[in-house]
Amino acid sequence: MLIKAAIVIIGNEILSGRTLDINTQYIAKKLSEIGIKLVETRIIADDHDSIISSILDLKHKYDYIFTTGGIGPTHDDITAKAVADAFNIPLERNEEAYNIIKAFYDSKGEALNSGRIKMSFLPKGSTLINNPISWAPGFIIKNVFVMAGVPHIMRAMLDHVIPKLQHNLPIMDRSIDIMVGESLVAEDFANLQNKYPEIEMGSYPFEKNGKHGTTLALRSIDLIKLEQSYLELMSLVKQYK
Amino acid sequence: MLIKAAIVIIGNEILSGRTLDINTQYIAKKLSEIGIKLVETRIIADDHDSIISSILDLKHKYDYIFTTGGIGPTHDDITAKAVADAFNIPLERNEEAYNIIKAFYDSKGEALNSGRIKMSFLPKGSTLINNPISWAPGFIIKNVFVMAGVPHIMRAMLDHVIPKLQHNLPIMDRSIDIMVGESLVAEDFANLQNKYPEIEMGSYPFEKNGKHGTTLALRSIDLIKLEQSYLELMSLVKQYK
Repeated sequence: MLIKAAIVIIGNEILSGRTLDINTQYIAKKLSEIGIKLVETRIIADDHDSIISSILDLKHKYDYIFTTGGIGPTHDDITAKAVADAFNIPLERNEEAYNIIKAFYDSKGEALNSGRIKMSFLPKGSTLINNPISWAPGFIIKNVFVMAGVPHIMRAMLDHVIPKLQHNLPIMDRSIDIMVGESLVAEDFANLQNKYPEIEMGSYPFEKNGKHGTTLALRSIDLIKLEQSYLELMSLVKQYK
Repeated sequence: MLIKAAIVIIGNEILSGRTLDINTQYIAKKLSEIGIKLVETRIIADDHDSIISSILDLKHKYDYIFTTGGIGPTHDDITAKAVADAFNIPLERNEEAYNIIKAFYDSKGEALNSGRIKMSFLPKGSTLINNPISWAPGFIIKNVFVMAGVPHIMRAMLDHVIPKLQHNLPIMDRSIDIMVGESLVAEDFANLQNKYPEIEMGSYPFEKNGKHGTTLALRSIDLIKLEQSYLELMSLVKQYK
C-alpha cells in the first residue's frame, strides 16, 4: 500500500511573490527516500478559514499532512489556532513547550513576552517536534505535522519527524537525457508507459548551450520493473543520445 | 473590488522533488503589478481526476485560474483533455493551433506526428495564448488560462495573457529590516496591524552574517494608508535599525 501525503505551505509571503517556496521540494525528496508519495501541495495565506478548510479537505485523503509556516510569535502566526479549530480541539498552553521556550529566553537573559508565550499555545494533546535552531517547537496533532516556515528550521524539524513516519521502500528514479525534442519520442515513450503502468514516466524538455533536449524520467517503488523499463528506454532512444 | 486568482501547477516532477516550482513566484509578482491578488496555489500530479477536481473547486471561487504544465506532446500531457472534461466541453482539433504547429514543423522540414498533432486538440471554444518560443499555444477557456510548465515558455505566454486581464491598482509593498528577533516587536506590530486592518502585515525572520534579523513587510492596494503605516512602523522600530 502506497503511503500518501500532502503539504500545506502557509504564508502570504509566498503568494505575494516575495519569497520562493523551497520547502515543497525538500520535503518531497525526503518523503521519496522513505517511500511516501507526495500527492499535492497547497500554498495558502495566513488566513484562519483557509487553513481550516485545507486541513478539513486533506486530513481524510492522505496518511500525513505536513504544514510549514505561521508558528512564530507575531500576529500573522495563526497556524496553531487554526489547526486546533480544524480538529475542534482547544488551544492550550503546552507546559513542555512553555518550559523549552522559557529556558531559551532565560539562557539569553531575556524575559518572556506575549509573543513568546503565544508559541507555547498548541492544540490539546499535541506531541512536540524538536526545534534545535530557535527552540520554539513544532507539533503533531492527529495526522498533521506542523512545522516552521523558515527553511533551515523546517529541515531540522523534518529530521526529527522522519523517524516517526511509516516507512516504505524508497521511491527510486532513473532518467535519460536525449538531445531531441520530446515530440520525436512521444509515441515510443507512450508505448513504454502502457507496457509498464506501475512506473511513473515523465518527459521534460530542457535547453542547454542553445540546444534543445528532453529528459525522460522513470519513477517507481518497484526496483526490478524500474530497471527493466530503464533498459528498454535506453535501447529505444539510443539513436538520440 | 479585489480581483482574485489561483494557480494550479500541474506536474509530477514538482511533487517528486525533481524540479523546483519557480512559476508561482513569477506569476505572483506579475499579478501584484496589475492589482490581482493570488489567493492560493495548488501543486498537483499529471492526473486526470486531480486536474478536474482542482478546476471544479477553484473556478467559482476566483476570477482567474492559471494553470502551468501538461500541454506538451507526450502521454503525460493531459491538461487540455482534463480541463475540457472539467467544463464538460468536447476536446477538438483547433484549426488555428493546428496551423501554427504545422507551420513550425514545416519550417524545420519535419513532419507532424501524433504527439505534435495532439497539441492542437483543445477544448471547443478556446482562445489561443501565443507561444513565441516553441509555437505550440496555450489556451483560455472560460476563466482558466492554460500555460506551459517550462518557465521561459510560461513567462512568454503570461506576457501575452496580462493585457487580457482585468487590471486594478498595483498591490504595493514596503518593508523594513531590523536586527532583532521578531518576538521583540510582535506586540507593537500587532497593534499597528489592528490600527490598519486594510494593510497586510507580515513578519519574516532572517539570518545574515550569523546575526538574526526580522523583515517587517507591509502590502496593500491603498498607497496612502500604506505610506502612513510605513511611517508609523519606522518610528516604532527606529531603536532596532
